[in-house]
Amino acid sequence: MESSSIDPSLPGVRQLQSWIREATPLHIQLIDGTRLGGSLHWQDPEFLALQPEPNTPVILLGRKAIAVIRSLA
Amino acid sequence: MESSSIDPSLPGVRQLQSWIREATPLHIQLIDGTRLGGSLHWQDPEFLALQPEPNTPVILLGRKAIAVIRSLA
Amino acid sequence: MESSSIDPSLPGVRQLQSWIREATPLHIQLIDGTRLGGSLHWQDPEFLALQPEPNTPVILLGRKAIAVIRSLA
Amino acid sequence: MESSSIDPSLPGVRQLQSWIREATPLHIQLIDGTRLGGSLHWQDPEFLALQPEPNTPVILLGRKAIAVIRSLA
Amino acid sequence: MESSSIDPSLPGVRQLQSWIREATPLHIQLIDGTRLGGSLHWQDPEFLALQPEPNTPVILLGRKAIAVIRSLA
Amino acid sequence: MESSSIDPSLPGVRQLQSWIREATPLHIQLIDGTRLGGSLHWQDPEFLALQPEPNTPVILLGRKAIAVIRSLA
Repeated sequence: MESSSIDPSLPGVRQLQSWIREATPLHIQLIDGTRLGGSLHWQDPEFLALQPEPNTPVILLGRKAIAVIRSLA
Repeated sequence: MESSSIDPSLPGVRQLQSWIREATPLHIQLIDGTRLGGSLHWQDPEFLALQPEPNTPVILLGRKAIAVIRSLA
Repeated sequence: MESSSIDPSLPGVRQLQSWIREATPLHIQLIDGTRLGGSLHWQDPEFLALQPEPNTPVILLGRKAIAVIRSLA
Repeated sequence: MESSSIDPSLPGVRQLQSWIREATPLHIQLIDGTRLGGSLHWQDPEFLALQPEPNTPVILLGRKAIAVIRSLA
Repeated sequence: MESSSIDPSLPGVRQLQSWIREATPLHIQLIDGTRLGGSLHWQDPEFLALQPEPNTPVILLGRKAIAVIRSLA
Repeated sequence: MESSSIDPSLPGVRQLQSWIREATPLHIQLIDGTRLGGSLHWQDPEFLALQPEPNTPVILLGRKAIAVIRSLA
């Protein structure tokens, strides 16, 4: 619960927002080696919400657990 | 013990509150690969309290150890 | 050494205090997979002090290394 | 989302900026053992943007997941 | 480099100071599973300085890497 | 990017500065088990710069990834 807002001037936040806006298919790797696919629904300072398929419930990914995010587009 | 409150305007906090309110069955994966199931009882800035079965004692999960939370509903 | 006090209004801190007060037998899992048993003697912002048996020296557990705490009561 | 700016007076930030400016080929190792190659496109407080090949989409690397960065130049 | 001082009122800091003062033999386990023995020479907010044998150079242990500290006394 | 300066009054910072000044050969172990040797060139709040051999490019080591630093002198 570091801080309660994200800074839209940061390139990382903007890159994530762009992927959210365009529902870009992504490959995400966590620091424990877990690999997940889907598109991002929202971001906040603690989590990214990943939607594996359209109209399925989101999965919360701990932001500190993120190692790599790749666009598949 | 980062900060002593959680920000209810964050989508992640709201998503967790919604799962707490509705006792949604969840699958939680920690960064060490541990997998647990149950519903959430409360959240605070350091822990999530998971109840594996109704009327059993809660299990504390270190919030920084959370990698993935999925709804099973 | 994040901050130098713990917030007694947090449910996680209160749950830990309750387990400390009642010397509840606990099972603690760290993020590296280490599992330990005993009861808690005190908590501070950086460590939990675990007593494996009554009248034995405490073991310090890094609070950030905590993944799961379960009551065995 | 620690803080929302990076401090250009730090030698680490300057070293990274120098590698970004010169598109130095790098080898990056994450704390989970993942190894990646490419050049850096930008840095912000949360991520490094790695470009494996010129004119390919960037890959976001969680800054906290970085263990080692070596220049291959 | 969280903060630049440690709080002597914390029980964990006091326990460590007591072990430092009395050169108590300790067993320390890091979150990657590394196990080390020796006595502590000093603590600061980022590191513990471990002396494996008297009159040998200290070894710095990242405080965030500490999982378990046990007294062998 | 915790804070933008290091506190020279800390014994850990001073020990690192002394090793930097004297180009002491060191053995460094990261929390993922990686082991590296060399001498330190500079430190900042986020990274240590390790030089495996004189006049080779520095390697950046994430300060949070440091588990153990031993002098080989």
